[in-house]
Amino acid sequence: MPEWINQGEAIDRISISDRGFQYGDGLFETIAVRDGKPRLWRYHLDRLARGCEVLGMEMPSESALSDGVIQALRNSETPTAHAVVKIIVSAGSGRRGYERAFADSPTVLFRAFSSAPPAPELYGNGIDTVICRTRLATGSATAGLKTLNRLEQVLARSEFSESDAFEGLTLDAEDSIICGTMSNVFFVNDKCISTPPLDRCGVEGVMRRHVIEILGQQGITVALQPYSLSRLADADEVFLSNSQFGVLPVKRCSAMKWPVGEVTQNVMTIMANNQVPECRR
Amino acid sequence: MPEWINQGEAIDRISISDRGFQYGDGLFETIAVRDGKPRLWRYHLDRLARGCEVLGMEMPSESALSDGVIQALRNSETPTAHAVVKIIVSAGSGRRGYERAFADSPTVLFRAFSSAPPAPELYGNGIDTVICRTRLATGSATAGLKTLNRLEQVLARSEFSESDAFEGLTLDAEDSIICGTMSNVFFVNDKCISTPPLDRCGVEGVMRRHVIEILGQQGITVALQPYSLSRLADADEVFLSNSQFGVLPVKRCSAMKWPVGEVTQNVMTIMANNQVPECRR
Repeated sequence: MPEWINQGEAIDRISISDRGFQYGDGLFETIAVRDGKPRLWRYHLDRLARGCEVLGMEMPSESALSDGVIQALRNSETPTAHAVVKIIVSAGSGRRGYERAFADSPTVLFRAFSSAPPAPELYGNGIDTVICRTRLATGSATAGLKTLNRLEQVLARSEFSESDAFEGLTLDAEDSIICGTMSNVFFVNDKCISTPPLDRCGVEGVMRRHVIEILGQQGITVALQPYSLSRLADADEVFLSNSQFGVLPVKRCSAMKWPVGEVTQNVMTIMANNQVPECRR
Repeated sequence: MPEWINQGEAIDRISISDRGFQYGDGLFETIAVRDGKPRLWRYHLDRLARGCEVLGMEMPSESALSDGVIQALRNSETPTAHAVVKIIVSAGSGRRGYERAFADSPTVLFRAFSSAPPAPELYGNGIDTVICRTRLATGSATAGLKTLNRLEQVLARSEFSESDAFEGLTLDAEDSIICGTMSNVFFVNDKCISTPPLDRCGVEGVMRRHVIEILGQQGITVALQPYSLSRLADADEVFLSNSQFGVLPVKRCSAMKWPVGEVTQNVMTIMANNQVPECRR
């Protein structure tokens, strides 16, 4: 059965001329579905809208997007208690060459996948990480966005496919830690939480935004500060965020080790009470 | 009639799960065909092989590539006196997520297009250019390569689609001129030719390599040197290279103007005698 939904039809193939394939000219969102509802939907829409603006593409209507999510879930017969829906918005089939024909309408695709929550012991004991050799290029015109240009993440991810590590942390050329290949990273020093700014490279995750906003409502400030690799050994605690798993403590990065500390435990308790129940340990 | 050749078959569509579409996980080459033969074939193969190595993909065999080019030309019934063939090598349909399943074999696609040479007066009088606002991110893991991650070029190209400019020059964050959206750039100062190094960003064009090597054989050195935007007004001459048009003089960039100078004319004459006859003015 065709697995992707496009304009209400189930399909499996797209035009080779689609600019998403030719140039990575497009965006995507990977949305956690919990108890039948897309989680952090508004934040996914916000990021997609910002991406469409930067890329000069037409933003699909909210109703078209939510209809597509519902159709994808129905089409896949995925149990909606715990699933994931991917939305791809590409610039569509256009003329040859980098220049777009602006009459082209975007290609909008939806697919639902079943997904299982990470093992509870990962929330309890933390995960292993590594530092990736692949560096993120800085000064990217699409910094923060989730575009279809994801080669850096593919290359970084390939570095630890043979290892037991759950995630790899990526650096920029100046040895600043930016984010994980599929997550954002937070550091705790002297009870203060910080996360790297993502205006030069990296992806601004919706869960990162949710963590910052929910903690802010509790009077806990997350500082946006560059974090050099050389400081990592001095971190008291490290944790990651991602739209699917919520928040996970980091117990190890290469030779460095951390306990699942008080601050991380508190963050997880707060997030568990705010739409991210998987963080309840 | 389906326009792309894949494993000997003419097709128009590919799997939505292809990693080329999902992540821009792949490479391409755009090869000039002149008098029935792919020009600078060896250089295209070199760059593709280097790209496959960096991306960790299997390089298609030379015979598979040359068969594909021939089939694409035959399939399109394009006159082969002056045509272009595009080859796309993507990482194929793999598992979901950034991690590749290394058992997947690459998707290899070929398509021929008819192409007309640029108007002779462009070679004689030069072309207009602009400086693009879109900056190239620096420190890219795929610098120099022609990957399917081309959003920077798409965005830069869109800036001058309404103008008469033939090409736009792109800078890095430090105001160094790196290359055009679809070409490489050379500067002439006091009879000396230079072109920017491309180890941090930009695409190493096959025609750039050909120009450097042919001029080298004539005892003319091309210096690999960063070139700041602030020096552009002091350039005596500026010219561009590209696999399709060969070498074109730049007569203007925003408010700056240049004559088609002696050095550029000499370069064009030399290149015209070395597989790039369109440079004969």
